[in-house]
Amino acid sequence: MSGPAGAMPHASSRAAVLDVIRAAGTISRVGLVGATGFTGATISTVVRRLIDDGLVVESGHAESTGGKRRVLLQLNRSARYAVGVHLDHDGITYVLTDLGGSVVARMSRAGVGVEDPRSVVERMAAESAALIEGAGIERERVLGLGLVAPGPLNQGPGSRLMQPAIRHWGDFPLGAGLQEATGLPVVLDNDATAAALGEHWSGQAGGGAFAALYMGTGIGAGLLLGGIPYRGPSGNAGEIGHIPLAADGPQCWCGARGCTEALAGPGAVVEAARADAVLARSAGLSGEAGRGRRTADFAAVTRAAHRGDPGARALLERSARYLALAARTLATIADLEELVLTGPGLAIAGSIYLPVVQEELERSFFSRASHPVRVRLSRMAATAPAIGAAAMMLQSELVPLREGTRLPENLTAAEPAPAAAPHGG
Amino acid sequence: MSGPAGAMPHASSRAAVLDVIRAAGTISRVGLVGATGFTGATISTVVRRLIDDGLVVESGHAESTGGKRRVLLQLNRSARYAVGVHLDHDGITYVLTDLGGSVVARMSRAGVGVEDPRSVVERMAAESAALIEGAGIERERVLGLGLVAPGPLNQGPGSRLMQPAIRHWGDFPLGAGLQEATGLPVVLDNDATAAALGEHWSGQAGGGAFAALYMGTGIGAGLLLGGIPYRGPSGNAGEIGHIPLAADGPQCWCGARGCTEALAGPGAVVEAARADAVLARSAGLSGEAGRGRRTADFAAVTRAAHRGDPGARALLERSARYLALAARTLATIADLEELVLTGPGLAIAGSIYLPVVQEELERSFFSRASHPVRVRLSRMAATAPAIGAAAMMLQSELVPLREGTRLPENLTAAEPAPAAAPHGG
Repeated sequence: MSGPAGAMPHASSRAAVLDVIRAAGTISRVGLVGATGFTGATISTVVRRLIDDGLVVESGHAESTGGKRRVLLQLNRSARYAVGVHLDHDGITYVLTDLGGSVVARMSRAGVGVEDPRSVVERMAAESAALIEGAGIERERVLGLGLVAPGPLNQGPGSRLMQPAIRHWGDFPLGAGLQEATGLPVVLDNDATAAALGEHWSGQAGGGAFAALYMGTGIGAGLLLGGIPYRGPSGNAGEIGHIPLAADGPQCWCGARGCTEALAGPGAVVEAARADAVLARSAGLSGEAGRGRRTADFAAVTRAAHRGDPGARALLERSARYLALAARTLATIADLEELVLTGPGLAIAGSIYLPVVQEELERSFFSRASHPVRVRLSRMAATAPAIGAAAMMLQSELVPLREGTRLPENLTAAEPAPAAAPHGG
Repeated sequence: MSGPAGAMPHASSRAAVLDVIRAAGTISRVGLVGATGFTGATISTVVRRLIDDGLVVESGHAESTGGKRRVLLQLNRSARYAVGVHLDHDGITYVLTDLGGSVVARMSRAGVGVEDPRSVVERMAAESAALIEGAGIERERVLGLGLVAPGPLNQGPGSRLMQPAIRHWGDFPLGAGLQEATGLPVVLDNDATAAALGEHWSGQAGGGAFAALYMGTGIGAGLLLGGIPYRGPSGNAGEIGHIPLAADGPQCWCGARGCTEALAGPGAVVEAARADAVLARSAGLSGEAGRGRRTADFAAVTRAAHRGDPGARALLERSARYLALAARTLATIADLEELVLTGPGLAIAGSIYLPVVQEELERSFFSRASHPVRVRLSRMAATAPAIGAAAMMLQSELVPLREGTRLPENLTAAEPAPAAAPHGG
């Protein structure tokens, strides 16, 4: 989002043209002039290079419009591939996509749990290789891997804030390790941004102001403005899990008070359910507070709610009301047009959260008089982050990012910053 | 922020080059290639046109670097001018700026109060003409007027939410009226966005993730991402006055509950002060609740606080704590690097609000481990919105906005949308 008046780097015209061709399916050079705003001369130069590189092919002619029939261009989808890896505590999802972002192969494997990061990296390298081989794709056509994990991801050393779920990984250089183990380029990002990009590349999201509200082990959001991820200078934009919804709210692991995640996250729901002996028993919750059990216990509370257990229902609806306030905040600040609810937590409990978020935005979104915020559950919650991860790899190779929006280089995990002294906000 | 992969409209290379020259002061063609990422061929074509149009002039040579000495380019600042008008309840501020955004003339006149919009428009036309004439600028060189007022501004009919302060203006088409009265193009925007752009054009703000937190009759924020205003699809992005900070908070005029503005705005401070008989007397508050008195009464409460009145101090510090939570929310969602406190309210009481906002961000901003948020009081609170308004006019003529980010077309004022039923959030 940077650079003088958004001036774009050298290869960006190529990037923009390629993305228009991808989105259009087939389009003529004249169509590209209209869609990109570049001159005819620029378009013909860029297109020639793209054809020479084998990324774009000519594919017949458009209907005659009186004059000379126009040659149609389309992406040579099988020219390049990318692997998308969605790393989470409870599972690792892999996809192999072509240049257009279409999934040609996918698989799911066991999650990280308390596994040693080195062995996870070796496993990811082996599983990625198996995915590529199984799909019969020459390794030379694979641009690299996009790896996404629970945020925040850090763009450099000195960043000292990490989700508790994978804090035991310490400062392990995940990106560099995977790059070494696979011999392929690796780009990193957080799962919420990847989920938003995955929805967009899959044609599930429009090009306006769009966000993916992600509930996994924590709560976050990925922002897409005009189809372009907005990550912010440290790659942590959209962290709505850590905005204050109650001045004197509970302490959050991030050191602040009253954060959405501390009030409404799966962890908060599960802890409250465990504290309710009757509910804990009826829902069959695990006694231990082990993180490994959190997702399972959140699912158990959700099932209890669906069975009509009033205590479970009340806990989830309280969580939903806070999540709705966070959604309203994000929608008002970004002037959102579209919001998708996604991530493992909302894949499980979305039917309880969706109406509460919808009602809050219909009733209280500041710009509701100008336009609504379309809210829906993701149709691809399980794979969107991995598809987005692959799309990031494709983008980082083919679609140079604007200055100041480069992807994070390494994922480091560490203790949180010194906790805040309690305050009245 | 729209268009495929941020593809830019036809004239945008011209726009980007012009903005780089403006920001650089003087720069060579080679320097422009480096700064914009455009090819040498594009740069020389664009620069030739800019010189032909009289917008850019050659100004001597750079130090020889061994090879041929490079011709330096600079903006022909006196080639064009723009008028910026900041319309507020309590005052109208005018600036005349050159093509570089430098103020060549300014003046302040009486505010809107309860004046009829038609007479305000005629007055603005006459006062603008006087400003231009007084500066001895030929009218032909004036591109037009930028007019900014308390948001939200609406991009079209059907928008039905307006600040109470100027709601009595009904559906009066301010922009069209001023255009007719002056015979010059008019662009509209809200004062918070204009304040942010004014800080940027005056070199007071960096090019990263920057926001101006504006407290006037209400509370809002203007967002600049990489030097480019982010307005959102309805032009209402950054409306942090209407994000929820307390689930069961007071009803806001916008129809929602617990909004920053209802909890912490000048109106809330003044009403609380009026309810305190002792404070109301010691601070010399007006009995009447007339809006016209609100700013004066807010100033009176601030003076009382500076005199050491504990009640006044407590009210302002409570307001500051809520404003700090809103600032933390905006900073976390946009991953802000820089925040300036501005607007009439903070020009008066900034010294009380600044430390509270700074402490909150140092302690609880989510990305504090990656980078701080530099918070400061505006050095130009009185003129930044008007300068930004003029800059918008310059931009709309010289720097075509990206698709989907066009400026609002007409300012309409109306009743708020049907108020929300009270709810627990």
